[in-house]
Amino acid sequence: MFSQTDFVHMERALALATRGMYTTDPNPRVGCVLVKDGAVIGEGFTQPAGQDHAEVRALKDARSRGQDVRGSTAYVTLEPCSHFGRTPPCANALIEAQVSRVVAAMEDPNPQVSGRGLKMLRDAGIEVRCGLLANEAHELNIGFVSRMTRGRPWVRMKVAASLDGRTGLPSGASQWITGEAARADGHAWRARASAILTGIGTVREDDPRMTVRAIDTPRQPQRVLIDSQLDVPPEAKILAGAPTLIFCSTLDERLAERADALRARGAELVSLANADGKVDLPAMLLELGKRNVNELHVEAGYKLNGSLLREGCVDELLVYLAPNLLGVESMGMFNLAAPDSLDGRVQLNFHAVDRIGEDLRVLARFAAPLARTDLH
Amino acid sequence: MFSQTDFVHMERALALATRGMYTTDPNPRVGCVLVKDGAVIGEGFTQPAGQDHAEVRALKDARSRGQDVRGSTAYVTLEPCSHFGRTPPCANALIEAQVSRVVAAMEDPNPQVSGRGLKMLRDAGIEVRCGLLANEAHELNIGFVSRMTRGRPWVRMKVAASLDGRTGLPSGASQWITGEAARADGHAWRARASAILTGIGTVREDDPRMTVRAIDTPRQPQRVLIDSQLDVPPEAKILAGAPTLIFCSTLDERLAERADALRARGAELVSLANADGKVDLPAMLLELGKRNVNELHVEAGYKLNGSLLREGCVDELLVYLAPNLLGVESMGMFNLAAPDSLDGRVQLNFHAVDRIGEDLRVLARFAAPLARTDLH
Repeated sequence: MFSQTDFVHMERALALATRGMYTTDPNPRVGCVLVKDGAVIGEGFTQPAGQDHAEVRALKDARSRGQDVRGSTAYVTLEPCSHFGRTPPCANALIEAQVSRVVAAMEDPNPQVSGRGLKMLRDAGIEVRCGLLANEAHELNIGFVSRMTRGRPWVRMKVAASLDGRTGLPSGASQWITGEAARADGHAWRARASAILTGIGTVREDDPRMTVRAIDTPRQPQRVLIDSQLDVPPEAKILAGAPTLIFCSTLDERLAERADALRARGAELVSLANADGKVDLPAMLLELGKRNVNELHVEAGYKLNGSLLREGCVDELLVYLAPNLLGVESMGMFNLAAPDSLDGRVQLNFHAVDRIGEDLRVLARFAAPLARTDLH
Repeated sequence: MFSQTDFVHMERALALATRGMYTTDPNPRVGCVLVKDGAVIGEGFTQPAGQDHAEVRALKDARSRGQDVRGSTAYVTLEPCSHFGRTPPCANALIEAQVSRVVAAMEDPNPQVSGRGLKMLRDAGIEVRCGLLANEAHELNIGFVSRMTRGRPWVRMKVAASLDGRTGLPSGASQWITGEAARADGHAWRARASAILTGIGTVREDDPRMTVRAIDTPRQPQRVLIDSQLDVPPEAKILAGAPTLIFCSTLDERLAERADALRARGAELVSLANADGKVDLPAMLLELGKRNVNELHVEAGYKLNGSLLREGCVDELLVYLAPNLLGVESMGMFNLAAPDSLDGRVQLNFHAVDRIGEDLRVLARFAAPLARTDLH
């Protein structure tokens, strides 16, 4: 169904899409290649929100090169959009440009519009093929797909630990367990996320800024703090700069003064309590989904990590293992109880394993959701 | 100094040496390639102890092919031996064969004979070069080198753990944390070792045989048990078959009956106590060195693992990490105390990282000895 040539051009479109990794949010990262008579005549990838999508960019690129786009094939990593958002629909742009063939890597994951863009193209007499390198395209927009299909972000939990699975000494010392290369790599994962989540425990212990600094990026992710009782000190670094979103479990009179002080620092406060009087984590994910968070990057401590895992709020673990041993009394990765039998253990699969500097990076995904949570 | 051709032939000699991985013990694994006029005319690798060494094997191979070995180049992964052991010296065999050039990967690690074989060759007018692919040759015989230079084996500690660094549930359940491929791989590491060490705790919990079964091997490693008070039941599987060596901390009257029962099962008992009345682990390593143990493969539990680490008796960790989480109350890898500060942590380096089936295999070496132990 797809030729070798199709593969080559779609690989290129995916590579272009990757260039939008830190910038397209909350839009998906999309790449487009226009090919005519075997030659690439235009290329593009999604620009920051409100600006050109990949297809329009590629058409403009071709025209700026003096190319006639009529009769060309468009390779796109995602089904062209069919609706008027902040920009006109890309399907229209391709139809007007009179391309003769469109090859898409995957359909739009939004169940409400999925297939519509392709139908518009077909109705206009354009030959349409879909599904080339679909896995790769899906991985590239795993957060966007998650938000469109589940209404919640793709949640990636970062952990830095010693080979014996410890994240800090009994004294709390944890800076730094991993090396410089791994820390920079961690910032690249922060940079691609829509939002970065941490908890009040980590703020108390490390007072982190939770910004991207080790690599260049034009966009800082939204910072999110879980702080049931609004214990974060107004001078905490996480409140400096762009407004931080704080989830608490109550905003009653008793906390009015704290709330005012935090709002004065620019923070936005959202109260979402569960039956235990703690922040309702699954509800928080839905709230973040409504706020267009595609990928949520978690860097929290033992307790919050454990709570997120137990409540089925984690999709993958990004574990950096350092070549050292911290000993048995040191902190474990997550406050997660042991199962009654080995059959009951949490099953993962190693999605990717790479050496980063002196350390090891393991991306592990859950073989099944940890807990049954009704998210819709 | 070495040509591309030299590299090619030494690579082949190393590949041949690897074929003796499970069989040459306690001799080193050595490979030899004879090359004349650019063509390989003979090949060989070390046969089981008492039989031909690699050089003699290669000369016989060449002659059996009707080749004239005079004027050829011999590529050997280790300096040819210069002494009469169970076989005559290989240096003599090469001199008598009138080879004109010898390329060796590394010198004999035994400080008492190192360089002698090469000198014999040079004195006979043969051109000699040494040091080609020395690292690879060293790795191949890391245990032999350890025994020759330190008088003790290379100690490799195997651990199977979950991604969160746990080796078993609080109930003790640990079979199996890793998958079948990793377990078979573990048996290949057992097979290359001269001896396999475990402790009484593991015998009590799992009653293991500590033999090589998952892969084919003509030779079973010596089994070694650390059992201070001779608590091992005479019916334990580790005592079945070939004689097991048991290190205890006393053989006094009180234990005479137990000792007799174990000897009746074929076990050999060696008492080696330290000041605390436990088995003196560094002294045990020297004893194993005297008994020609090159590589010692350790599969023990939390306590003995910790003791071996603390007493500087481990050279590398062979860690299988499984894609699952066992939770924070589950068993840690080693009974090893946390350091006072991160600067005091045990530093390793990741020597090799590979995916084995669904699991991950990490070979980690100590950046510095864990403890200062005077072994000579």
